[in-house]
Amino acid sequence: MLRPKVSKKIATSPGSLVHIGERKADKPRVEMIEFDLERLAEKNFDSVAECLQARQGLGVTWINLDGLHEVELVEELGKAHGLHALTMEDILHTNQRPKLEDFDSYIFVVLRMLEYDRQIRDEQISLIIGQGFVLSFQESHGDVFEEVRGRIRSGKGRVRKRQADYLAYTLIDAIVDHYFLVLEKLGEEIEATSDQLVSDPKPSLIQRVQHIRTQMLGLRRSVWPLREVLSKLERTDSELLAEGTSLFVRDVYDHTVQVIDVVETYREMSSGLVDLYLSAASNKMNEVMKVLTVMASIFIPLTFIAGIYGMNFEYMPELHVRWGYFFALFLMGIIGVGMLIFFKRKDWL
Amino acid sequence: MLRPKVSKKIATSPGSLVHIGERKADKPRVEMIEFDLERLAEKNFDSVAECLQARQGLGVTWINLDGLHEVELVEELGKAHGLHALTMEDILHTNQRPKLEDFDSYIFVVLRMLEYDRQIRDEQISLIIGQGFVLSFQESHGDVFEEVRGRIRSGKGRVRKRQADYLAYTLIDAIVDHYFLVLEKLGEEIEATSDQLVSDPKPSLIQRVQHIRTQMLGLRRSVWPLREVLSKLERTDSELLAEGTSLFVRDVYDHTVQVIDVVETYREMSSGLVDLYLSAASNKMNEVMKVLTVMASIFIPLTFIAGIYGMNFEYMPELHVRWGYFFALFLMGIIGVGMLIFFKRKDWL
Amino acid sequence: MLRPKVSKKIATSPGSLVHIGERKADKPRVEMIEFDLERLAEKNFDSVAECLQARQGLGVTWINLDGLHEVELVEELGKAHGLHALTMEDILHTNQRPKLEDFDSYIFVVLRMLEYDRQIRDEQISLIIGQGFVLSFQESHGDVFEEVRGRIRSGKGRVRKRQADYLAYTLIDAIVDHYFLVLEKLGEEIEATSDQLVSDPKPSLIQRVQHIRTQMLGLRRSVWPLREVLSKLERTDSELLAEGTSLFVRDVYDHTVQVIDVVETYREMSSGLVDLYLSAASNKMNEVMKVLTVMASIFIPLTFIAGIYGMNFEYMPELHVRWGYFFALFLMGIIGVGMLIFFKRKDWL
Amino acid sequence: MLRPKVSKKIATSPGSLVHIGERKADKPRVEMIEFDLERLAEKNFDSVAECLQARQGLGVTWINLDGLHEVELVEELGKAHGLHALTMEDILHTNQRPKLEDFDSYIFVVLRMLEYDRQIRDEQISLIIGQGFVLSFQESHGDVFEEVRGRIRSGKGRVRKRQADYLAYTLIDAIVDHYFLVLEKLGEEIEATSDQLVSDPKPSLIQRVQHIRTQMLGLRRSVWPLREVLSKLERTDSELLAEGTSLFVRDVYDHTVQVIDVVETYREMSSGLVDLYLSAASNKMNEVMKVLTVMASIFIPLTFIAGIYGMNFEYMPELHVRWGYFFALFLMGIIGVGMLIFFKRKDWL
Amino acid sequence: MLRPKVSKKIATSPGSLVHIGERKADKPRVEMIEFDLERLAEKNFDSVAECLQARQGLGVTWINLDGLHEVELVEELGKAHGLHALTMEDILHTNQRPKLEDFDSYIFVVLRMLEYDRQIRDEQISLIIGQGFVLSFQESHGDVFEEVRGRIRSGKGRVRKRQADYLAYTLIDAIVDHYFLVLEKLGEEIEATSDQLVSDPKPSLIQRVQHIRTQMLGLRRSVWPLREVLSKLERTDSELLAEGTSLFVRDVYDHTVQVIDVVETYREMSSGLVDLYLSAASNKMNEVMKVLTVMASIFIPLTFIAGIYGMNFEYMPELHVRWGYFFALFLMGIIGVGMLIFFKRKDWL
Repeated sequence: MLRPKVSKKIATSPGSLVHIGERKADKPRVEMIEFDLERLAEKNFDSVAECLQARQGLGVTWINLDGLHEVELVEELGKAHGLHALTMEDILHTNQRPKLEDFDSYIFVVLRMLEYDRQIRDEQISLIIGQGFVLSFQESHGDVFEEVRGRIRSGKGRVRKRQADYLAYTLIDAIVDHYFLVLEKLGEEIEATSDQLVSDPKPSLIQRVQHIRTQMLGLRRSVWPLREVLSKLERTDSELLAEGTSLFVRDVYDHTVQVIDVVETYREMSSGLVDLYLSAASNKMNEVMKVLTVMASIFIPLTFIAGIYGMNFEYMPELHVRWGYFFALFLMGIIGVGMLIFFKRKDWL
Repeated sequence: MLRPKVSKKIATSPGSLVHIGERKADKPRVEMIEFDLERLAEKNFDSVAECLQARQGLGVTWINLDGLHEVELVEELGKAHGLHALTMEDILHTNQRPKLEDFDSYIFVVLRMLEYDRQIRDEQISLIIGQGFVLSFQESHGDVFEEVRGRIRSGKGRVRKRQADYLAYTLIDAIVDHYFLVLEKLGEEIEATSDQLVSDPKPSLIQRVQHIRTQMLGLRRSVWPLREVLSKLERTDSELLAEGTSLFVRDVYDHTVQVIDVVETYREMSSGLVDLYLSAASNKMNEVMKVLTVMASIFIPLTFIAGIYGMNFEYMPELHVRWGYFFALFLMGIIGVGMLIFFKRKDWL
Repeated sequence: MLRPKVSKKIATSPGSLVHIGERKADKPRVEMIEFDLERLAEKNFDSVAECLQARQGLGVTWINLDGLHEVELVEELGKAHGLHALTMEDILHTNQRPKLEDFDSYIFVVLRMLEYDRQIRDEQISLIIGQGFVLSFQESHGDVFEEVRGRIRSGKGRVRKRQADYLAYTLIDAIVDHYFLVLEKLGEEIEATSDQLVSDPKPSLIQRVQHIRTQMLGLRRSVWPLREVLSKLERTDSELLAEGTSLFVRDVYDHTVQVIDVVETYREMSSGLVDLYLSAASNKMNEVMKVLTVMASIFIPLTFIAGIYGMNFEYMPELHVRWGYFFALFLMGIIGVGMLIFFKRKDWL
Repeated sequence: MLRPKVSKKIATSPGSLVHIGERKADKPRVEMIEFDLERLAEKNFDSVAECLQARQGLGVTWINLDGLHEVELVEELGKAHGLHALTMEDILHTNQRPKLEDFDSYIFVVLRMLEYDRQIRDEQISLIIGQGFVLSFQESHGDVFEEVRGRIRSGKGRVRKRQADYLAYTLIDAIVDHYFLVLEKLGEEIEATSDQLVSDPKPSLIQRVQHIRTQMLGLRRSVWPLREVLSKLERTDSELLAEGTSLFVRDVYDHTVQVIDVVETYREMSSGLVDLYLSAASNKMNEVMKVLTVMASIFIPLTFIAGIYGMNFEYMPELHVRWGYFFALFLMGIIGVGMLIFFKRKDWL
Repeated sequence: MLRPKVSKKIATSPGSLVHIGERKADKPRVEMIEFDLERLAEKNFDSVAECLQARQGLGVTWINLDGLHEVELVEELGKAHGLHALTMEDILHTNQRPKLEDFDSYIFVVLRMLEYDRQIRDEQISLIIGQGFVLSFQESHGDVFEEVRGRIRSGKGRVRKRQADYLAYTLIDAIVDHYFLVLEKLGEEIEATSDQLVSDPKPSLIQRVQHIRTQMLGLRRSVWPLREVLSKLERTDSELLAEGTSLFVRDVYDHTVQVIDVVETYREMSSGLVDLYLSAASNKMNEVMKVLTVMASIFIPLTFIAGIYGMNFEYMPELHVRWGYFFALFLMGIIGVGMLIFFKRKDWL
């Protein structure tokens, strides 16, 4: 899709809960992982009520909801954790820019999760960081959190030793790390396009360049505001964030800045591709023109000479000379070779 | 219209009330909606005096004036609500940038309402947020507030439960939401133009691209200052705004930033369209040149050979050979086919 | 004139009073208007001494000096009102950027008054706002203040009711309002150029586009710093400005921002004109090439056929066939029509 | 020289005094001017020791050193006035950006003095403003200070009445004023190039445009940081600057901003020159193509007709008609004139 | 390599020590230099344990580790000096932007060391500035510090007299100074490319221009953040930096700003190269077209005349005239010469 998504939210009252966006998941799924240093509980549910009932109250609870079109699930989950009506709206309106809002009892973070598959597809991830719990809301099944789940299960790394804020950091880190993969693929595409532009400048390549640039603009819209979000998160004085966590947030912040750096570099590189195309195209045209000019310049004078001796004047002395014909051929040969040398010298051959 | 509107206000004393702008409405109309949680009164009037007399003093009064060319109406309404002379001037000068001015007893907000119909038409909306009332001034009949009126009438949503400041927020929200519709249409036009540029690069398309860009510049002039307006409104310490309202203002602010994001993306995309055009045009030229070159390069040498045997030399042995003619034709065939293979190899056919 | 004015002030001691700039007025003229709510005195003088002597001491005195090349006039007037040496220098060096300097006993404002007449001509206006008086210095006769004088004479508007600071505001307002007229004319020129570019892309138009852009740069140099000047004036805590005046200054500030907005829009539009030209020119070239290609492609093969039957081989059976000639003509007709259809299909005709 | 100077300082210990830059002066020269309101002493020396000995201790001492390659001179002079080692290094490394450093006992200012002579040549001027003295260090003989010396000698202007800080201001003012001369010359070159581009677009002109742009970049590198330097100098609270001097510094600051304004305008104008070139070149190509097209389109069909009647068919009735030849000529004339009219209508002739 | 390095760190737990980057050194090497004013000890080790054991505890210890792929070495060295886990991670992830982090007990600085060899190769240098020691981590053997080592050994300059902070400054200074060498080489390449573009505009040169621009982008990514790093370092209130050192840091800061200045100038110059190419290419095309046009315009009319007298009409009076043939030749000569004069006047020959 070429254009950025523009919400068609026109006729909705501000404050009513309506899902805005495509329906990406078939059936919503509630997934809960509870853990502390020793214990671990993990289960999927169909309804929020079941999920909340099954909760054991371990140190950290992570509830993940895939699929937002069943608005009641979001509402139920939100109310159970004391979310503000506007927060729930923002979760459901899936074309938010990344943002962070601090509601004292919880921190609300919106992020964009990116996948690359010929073009960038993005999905809104909303995180609620509360006292002892993290809620995450996704538009569809499938995410970049598998590796985080693996680390929770295995107990490797720091995640089991720390609190909800560290879990939230890990999720954000997973999303940002995935940006590098997307960048990698975009970079490969830029390189491939650049190589083709030089060898065979077809206008379809310019369309591809435009496509890449549009992708980049989309990526940028996701990443630039994230920088601000993470900077806010690092400097927040919310009690929900343990002191040591801000160092880790700083780390993701650094990664985000790296992503921005690369995006900007790619943008400059892709605008250089247009120059490359134009120069290759003008070169090709030049080559065509040279062939035409060489062919025409050699044969037009020769044809003229042939034309002269094809005239029917009664009195044309050369025609009656014994070696006239061969002399004419010789003259043509001289002129032809002269032209060839001339064009060779001009480096047009 | 290509150019931004430039006011011709030259000879007016600052401080005299004169309507500057086109006369867009035939007959001004005063419309009043009063409501609180239980009660609702709605009526249209021809004069301000009638309107003010009919006022019952419910919780929130919204008076909307369509048409500004009868300056007395604005003056009467303004004086009855204690508006400063400069505020009334600004209401009447309809090429203001969006702005917010806090006059202690009321907040004055200027916005631009946009409609898209082949091109963007904009109208100045001036809002006065006072204690218990909202005044709105429009240049013409017809607006984007129908849905707000519907919600007031039906009592759905929060608008009936809250004060004048929330009503004002709802009006601003309606205007900003409408921007998305305008963007949607502009986006469609960019896409359509982009598709045509590739298939058939006519220079009239470049004019369309310029037109789109100019539209975008107009949109930008309306939206950029709005961001500042909303940021001011969110952070104002005026007593006219209840505390909870700033969260909603923040929400419209976020939407405005989204609009700006999309506008900037569109701007970059539309400047890419020029590259697309130039590359498509240069490609078309290339194709034309190739046809010429192929035709000329094949037939010019053949014509030359025909010319040779059209010469009238007395002594030309080939002419008298039995199979001379057929041999000449054969030679021409060889040369022609050779050229074809050469151009095929060059990928020019 | 294409280039911005560059002062040639090389060998002057800083601090010596020398007029730098063109001599624009033939004979300097001192013009004094004194007024309060009831009384009004207005007279022109040839010397400063006469003027000062004639002063009656009404509420507000406005002394306007046209023509700066008689340095003594400036010096005399300046000394009588306690101007700093550097202020007098700045008044005389007529290529200042707009600026504001607060010398406690007076405020010094430099502005650029613009006129449009095929190109922008600008003139430096220096204003001194003092206690009970305004001094204005112009390079030449003729200004945009006639309307202000009219209002003072007629007593309409607020100017007679207020103090010197309001008079100064009115003068600045008159200058800024005139910018809109200049913009209007520039806008018309952009539109006219744009129309011509499409219908007949001559390179002289590009020169005109460059000319417009240079004009715009000049306008910009005059307007951008003015914004800062007015912002300073609005926020000054000088006792020379009555409290109510800052609201009016805010109003001119808003106009200046509008001017800047339009200038920036025009800049973008005029840079779009170059794209328009290049695309129109490339289209025209394309058309020329198509005519050549069509003509050559149709007739070169036909001429080749004619060439064949113009050969003088002894044994050419077709030549002796009864309908040979007509058959050849028929063949040529077929080929010609085939080519026409081919080019018609390619949409080159 | 096209590229900015890049110092090759690789293997020097930071802190060792080595001259970096070209050796521009043959023989260093120490020049001392001492003055107060009544007295004046001026002399040149070969060594620093002589100079210091000859010093009489008048109000203000200005010691100027031309030529930096005899490092000992700088060191001796520096030590005698208590300069920090890093200051001496900065004086000797002659590719500094303009900067100001406040070392309590003296203020160190680095400036770039520009000369224009087909291209900009710049020289580093280091100023030390101390209590009662100014030291200036130049790379070579010859400077823009002659006029300042003249004023000191003649006692005109303020320089003899004031302190060392005012002298320093005068020197900076002389350098900045000289920038206007450089701008004047660059402006003339832009105008001349622009005129030639239109009349005769040769690619060597584009090289000249690039040259001008590079000059401009160099100028910019010298002027932009100067603005900051002067702003710092104006707002410094060093006791070395008398209060009244900051007003004068403000004046030079204003000039610097004017220079920057003009530089930016020139930059935009010179980037417009490329557009001008491309449009002129494309126009010239167009003209060439039109000549080719007109010639070919007229004569190719005529030649075809001639070719037809040059065929040797036995049975060609026209050939035997009495007026056949003249009819053929007439037909050719008709076609030729028709083509001429066609091209005339297309405005290609 | 065209694209910026994008780390593929996807599946690593944040907080686990893994080397990310290419393996550049064969075998890691630990190098320790200890010194104070009188004593000096220098030795290489294979393991960290040996190194730490050999430490004598002189005033300043500099331990340098070449090669990061043996993670244990970094970990051992880090733990012995109390480095935070995140610091060790950052040392190992070798695509960091330059940054500075102050961990109270040490300051952590990341820099990029650049080498130029047809293209820029960069290496991450991590510095730990602690109380009495500096640790440096490099990706591979070979660095720009040889000269620093020389100065330590010889005792020249200030390095032996000062503390660890000064040593760290010297190392940073060495890296920044090396940037000038890289710039020098890039500048030479820009100049060489510019010269070739004018003499022989091949599209491969545009690729080289793109290459240079990409190099510049890489350089920029290394240098821009460095500015911030050094500004932080200068203004830090860490007790690890002696007061006098900040003056030296200011000096490197100035160098960095100079590097940025030159990089920006180069960027502008290299974008001018594209204009140069396009104008040279369009000029070359123009030349080709002129040759074609001149050849075709001269010979096509001549061939037409020859064609006329090659017609076989029975009644063509000219054919039987005695001097007909020579007259025809004469006519052709006149026309040919006329065309030549025409083209000469147009300056096409």
